[in-house]
Amino acid sequence: MTSGDGAIRTQVAIVGGGPAGLMLAHLLHLQGIDSVVVDNRSYDEISTTHRAGILEHDSVTMLVDTGASQRVLIDGDEHEGIELRFGGVGHRIDFKTLVGASCTLYPQTDVFIDLYATASARGAALHYGVRDTEVVDITGSPRVLFTDAAGARREIAADFVVGADGSRSICRKLVADRTQYFREYPFAWFGILAEAPKSAPELIYCRSERGFALISQRTPTIQRMYFQCSPDENVDDWSQERIWSELQARVAGPDGFTLNEGPIIDKSVLPFRSFVQTPMRHGNLLLAGDAAHTVPPTGAKGLNLALADVRVLAEVLDRAINSHDTEALDTYTDRALSRVWKAQHFSYWMTSMLHTVADASDFDEQRQLGELSTLVASEAGSTYLAEGYTGWPSRRRWNQ
Amino acid sequence: MTSGDGAIRTQVAIVGGGPAGLMLAHLLHLQGIDSVVVDNRSYDEISTTHRAGILEHDSVTMLVDTGASQRVLIDGDEHEGIELRFGGVGHRIDFKTLVGASCTLYPQTDVFIDLYATASARGAALHYGVRDTEVVDITGSPRVLFTDAAGARREIAADFVVGADGSRSICRKLVADRTQYFREYPFAWFGILAEAPKSAPELIYCRSERGFALISQRTPTIQRMYFQCSPDENVDDWSQERIWSELQARVAGPDGFTLNEGPIIDKSVLPFRSFVQTPMRHGNLLLAGDAAHTVPPTGAKGLNLALADVRVLAEVLDRAINSHDTEALDTYTDRALSRVWKAQHFSYWMTSMLHTVADASDFDEQRQLGELSTLVASEAGSTYLAEGYTGWPSRRRWNQ
Repeated sequence: MTSGDGAIRTQVAIVGGGPAGLMLAHLLHLQGIDSVVVDNRSYDEISTTHRAGILEHDSVTMLVDTGASQRVLIDGDEHEGIELRFGGVGHRIDFKTLVGASCTLYPQTDVFIDLYATASARGAALHYGVRDTEVVDITGSPRVLFTDAAGARREIAADFVVGADGSRSICRKLVADRTQYFREYPFAWFGILAEAPKSAPELIYCRSERGFALISQRTPTIQRMYFQCSPDENVDDWSQERIWSELQARVAGPDGFTLNEGPIIDKSVLPFRSFVQTPMRHGNLLLAGDAAHTVPPTGAKGLNLALADVRVLAEVLDRAINSHDTEALDTYTDRALSRVWKAQHFSYWMTSMLHTVADASDFDEQRQLGELSTLVASEAGSTYLAEGYTGWPSRRRWNQ
Repeated sequence: MTSGDGAIRTQVAIVGGGPAGLMLAHLLHLQGIDSVVVDNRSYDEISTTHRAGILEHDSVTMLVDTGASQRVLIDGDEHEGIELRFGGVGHRIDFKTLVGASCTLYPQTDVFIDLYATASARGAALHYGVRDTEVVDITGSPRVLFTDAAGARREIAADFVVGADGSRSICRKLVADRTQYFREYPFAWFGILAEAPKSAPELIYCRSERGFALISQRTPTIQRMYFQCSPDENVDDWSQERIWSELQARVAGPDGFTLNEGPIIDKSVLPFRSFVQTPMRHGNLLLAGDAAHTVPPTGAKGLNLALADVRVLAEVLDRAINSHDTEALDTYTDRALSRVWKAQHFSYWMTSMLHTVADASDFDEQRQLGELSTLVASEAGSTYLAEGYTGWPSRRRWNQ
């Protein structure tokens, strides 16, 4: 709808149309709340940028139960565990047995495609490929200004603005009295896509003396793999042969396990950084997902945390808008951050347990192997890891 | 017994007459193996030097079942859990419920006194207060040379020598081709003994913004407490008032918990260091306890690890001596070290989870709280900690 002065009028303006923004728009719609989404990226850009691929059980449930995606049940690949591999030997962590939950391999690009299709089908107000986005007056009557794909300057007048605009968020900077927490890591991940059959049915998190490697999957014919590298690694220095040789060396062991090789069709270096900003709300602006926090990729928490934020956010916005309970908004930061810090620790733990550090002492390398040995030999330790990996699902719920 | 050439003749010469050396002598005696113990410290020195005070369940069982100490059951104080305290709130980890095991508060000095009394009662060959100890010919026919308390130069000829001579071991240096692993920590513990009633029935491991504190007990009228300090802290800089003020500040919280104060009768700074040497055997020399490895005091693994070494060592010496199975000796290093590295990681984990580091980022402080919150909310996580603290007892055994 358009207001009298030419501005688009909505209840919630959502800056950022990735999975978090679109999922929020969908949940709000189900609650009878109108929203408008703007994103400076194009549909093509978002739908082709390779990101995470593992959904926690609760993320799958959210997509399916809200009608946002049925395809995740068809094309998604349920994983009932992972393998921890060290000293060249694999040890399976069986999520289903340990915590009664599983994860689903379903790329973030597919989550986006499904959410976009759902939003389009109901005629949602979506503006992609915009530029010069500005958010103003967040403590009064917020407005979002942008230049649309056709070049016209537009304005959204909203009761609330949600910043779901990712790790380079513009909304984040509007939070007054913000505290930011950072952690840098002395390494990055070298990620590839390869045209090859699967090397393993589930993800393999591999610690070797040469560094960490993650053997993942994408489709029956395309695989996703990563190996720990220097943050300033140049992908052009890595030929196909060199990449395969490095990956094979990291997974090699007495069991003779080898990777199925094939043409590498994509290679990139993923940054490794932990970040949290608090508070996640200022006036009528609320942040969700990467705009407020980023995690290193180990443990695949990024998208799942964003969806967890959105779940809480939809609830507090519903109470604020439909029940005029604005105090609900005051609870948002603490509720969201309590999960964020659990996930930050989990990501740090998985990272520090499996990566090698150039200046680590020999003591710390042996201690790291001592931890891994203790963990896989302990049902309690393995369960503790499985709880974090599957997203701290409540056992009660899965058993209903 | 004395051999023809004037040397004392025995099967196993044990260098170091602390709890590890005396426990080994006792186990060997039960297996019909003769040993002689030498130590450069006096009985009075060892029996009055305050050390650790927590025995794992298996350590208690070893003392009791072998007849080395009945007093541990009478004077020892069974602890069925600990408290993890952070953000000024306590969270109990209930060992008995989680893993079916407990620990026992029984000071190392009492373990020594009991073991010494047991050895004396059977007329064991014990030489305390010796000096200028030398160990020679460990790959042939080992001999231990020393000057006894009366000033006479003595010699022990033995089939095997065990170095249980603590963190300043002379035996350690005789292992050819040794690899040593070190880890330094940027802090130490300030330990006190105070004449005061108990402040709590069980140990409290407390993380505060001012640093770690451990509230422990010793007797109904004497308590043991520690707080994280600088490695170069000078005990003379700390008045009674300043010590109590610091301890009270670290445990303070909304629940109003305070410590019972009283005269401080002992204060010292405990070093904080991780060390492992491998192999633990060279020729006919075998190492046990602190001679081969030291752990930081968090988690109270030091004495328990030494007793675990001794358990394995008594078994392999029995096989070597009584069954002429010298290959048993080859298994000693790997069997002992697999437990040592678990304990090293456990001690590191407890330390890093609860101590503050001066140059830690705000991120890492929040992450640390995120870990503690996740752990105490998770039965699996709490169980994993309880397994380590109680010494990875086999559930099967406790349920028999």
